[in-house]
Amino acid sequence: MINRFHSIQDKFAWIKVMGKKRVCIIGSAIAKIVGKNAHKYPQFETDVRMYVYEEIVDGRKLSEIINEQHENVKYLPGHKLPENIIADPDLEHTVGDADILVFVVPHAFVSRICNTLKGKINPNAIAISLIKGFNELPSGGIELISDVIRHTLGIDTSVLMGANLANEVAEQKFCETTIGCKCPHQGAILKDLFQTDDFRITVVPDRYTVEICGALKNVVACAAGFSDGLGYGDNTKAAVIRIGLKEMIRFCKTFYADGLRVSTFFESCGVADLITTCYGGRNRRVSEAFVKTGKTIEELETEMLNGQKLQGYQTCEEVVNMLNLNGYIDRFPLFHAVNLIYKRELPAEKLVEFLRREPDEDD
Amino acid sequence: MINRFHSIQDKFAWIKVMGKKRVCIIGSAIAKIVGKNAHKYPQFETDVRMYVYEEIVDGRKLSEIINEQHENVKYLPGHKLPENIIADPDLEHTVGDADILVFVVPHAFVSRICNTLKGKINPNAIAISLIKGFNELPSGGIELISDVIRHTLGIDTSVLMGANLANEVAEQKFCETTIGCKCPHQGAILKDLFQTDDFRITVVPDRYTVEICGALKNVVACAAGFSDGLGYGDNTKAAVIRIGLKEMIRFCKTFYADGLRVSTFFESCGVADLITTCYGGRNRRVSEAFVKTGKTIEELETEMLNGQKLQGYQTCEEVVNMLNLNGYIDRFPLFHAVNLIYKRELPAEKLVEFLRREPDEDD
Repeated sequence: MINRFHSIQDKFAWIKVMGKKRVCIIGSAIAKIVGKNAHKYPQFETDVRMYVYEEIVDGRKLSEIINEQHENVKYLPGHKLPENIIADPDLEHTVGDADILVFVVPHAFVSRICNTLKGKINPNAIAISLIKGFNELPSGGIELISDVIRHTLGIDTSVLMGANLANEVAEQKFCETTIGCKCPHQGAILKDLFQTDDFRITVVPDRYTVEICGALKNVVACAAGFSDGLGYGDNTKAAVIRIGLKEMIRFCKTFYADGLRVSTFFESCGVADLITTCYGGRNRRVSEAFVKTGKTIEELETEMLNGQKLQGYQTCEEVVNMLNLNGYIDRFPLFHAVNLIYKRELPAEKLVEFLRREPDEDD
Repeated sequence: MINRFHSIQDKFAWIKVMGKKRVCIIGSAIAKIVGKNAHKYPQFETDVRMYVYEEIVDGRKLSEIINEQHENVKYLPGHKLPENIIADPDLEHTVGDADILVFVVPHAFVSRICNTLKGKINPNAIAISLIKGFNELPSGGIELISDVIRHTLGIDTSVLMGANLANEVAEQKFCETTIGCKCPHQGAILKDLFQTDDFRITVVPDRYTVEICGALKNVVACAAGFSDGLGYGDNTKAAVIRIGLKEMIRFCKTFYADGLRVSTFFESCGVADLITTCYGGRNRRVSEAFVKTGKTIEELETEMLNGQKLQGYQTCEEVVNMLNLNGYIDRFPLFHAVNLIYKRELPAEKLVEFLRREPDEDD
């Protein structure tokens, strides 16, 4: 855990030197919390601009509805936003000279958004990404979303990941999350921006671990869904989740070992988010149906996800390509099995056979 | 992970020097696997005696029924036992000069059994305990079950814990378990005695960690059950489980730090058994009912557990007494809350208030 400011005096001294931080949100989740905290704490400018992709809803512009009714009637209806959240359909205007950029868009949009903003932002700004998933490189490797932001915009980028589905956070049910942030002072500021009584935050320095957990848990949830679809019991499912967690750790140690702390897997971004996803998430649900119904993944995406892509399947394909490319596939039998089962190259019943191959070595 | 023998030659050399190991089981679970492996591997004597508390079932002695029908018709009906398992109602005769004593009795019987056997066993024997729970000391402290065996019989004692409920193991569903064993050579022998294709074993050296996980998970499952009973969502439940896991780690670090390896919490005895217990176990189920029905714990034990005691509640009481005695209670708000809620000294709704107090320090 990174220490916060040692005293209120420290914090005010920091504000005096650094000025109030202007925050903007690129995307539409988390605005309720960020808006409230920007209003509450002196270290933030009160007004928070929020980039909204303009749409016409009931004959009116979505951004105008949000600014009048203080509610995102399309994507998070029923939840009032604080009045200091200002919806803006102009990306560059939203960001302006903001000091803190909060990214919460679907991961397919990140590259385009960053390219639009390139060279036009405050060079001392920092970013924080709430986006889960990887960016696939043409070479077959993968790139972290935070690296896309980091490298395109040239700014320091932290991440926020954890067991915190949007609507439960909005409903103020107690949950937790993890911020991965290299710099302790930035971590303290970001914690103030996001933490509430019901949304508890821990800050850890190994941001890569935090981000990779957010992507790989969806792959493990596919395996958990297969286990459910095959009618295996609680113990088999627990073994699947555990072996998946070991492969998540092994993946981080293999490709992102620098600064890795195993204790981060005990944070919300690790074990808690994994459990939630393996018991409640859409990846689990669709994977269970894949085994039970014999339908194709495309059919299930149409029927169960309104045509959205199943993230665990996509991530798994990217990860397996990368493992094959580097000759590591044999050390990741669970990831490998999920990929083969989804491609119908392995009957789902063979999942356990792959789990038996799990390397015995000390991680 | 502890290495097994480097080659078959090593193993046979060991058998030549050490002789075949005679195995006995004190209790009635796990006999199917142990019997099969004792028959399969040359390093074990084929016959395995199993101590059975004599009862009359349908007018006949249980031990005789088992030895004729090769089935424990009372406690594990429908599962054939290997013919080399010999039920024996005489405890001392069962143990005889056995080299490996497998303990699988309910934890309340351990002291009495060990006192009966004291001074009468092979002094070079080793023991392995599958028993979950603590022994409460008159001083208010707790004693590990393995320490009861270790200290009363004066023999080296390992433990086996994991996500492996008796009937699923017997049904040969894939599951995993963890052996905590200090000596690598003993660990290899014990692994051979218990491992099958569907029952995967990892051996780790920090046996205290393994054993404490087996006891404390039941306390966490009570908190998970309260969360369910209060209608909290998946994320809150995941936070409860995660915070519980952190307190399990903190407890081990506080009282049993010697040799502790944090990676052991990623083994089956740790995260996997915890998940199974928090989603499927009786501690979760009774705790949910405790919140929903307002009945007393005694009423629920009678109604839901056929009068058996709820282990998580008992363990929690013992742990909280020990924490109070040592002045550590403030560092374990989840354990504390479970205890207070069961004593009706704290409304269940206040659980989250206690979780917010979870220490932020780096474990």
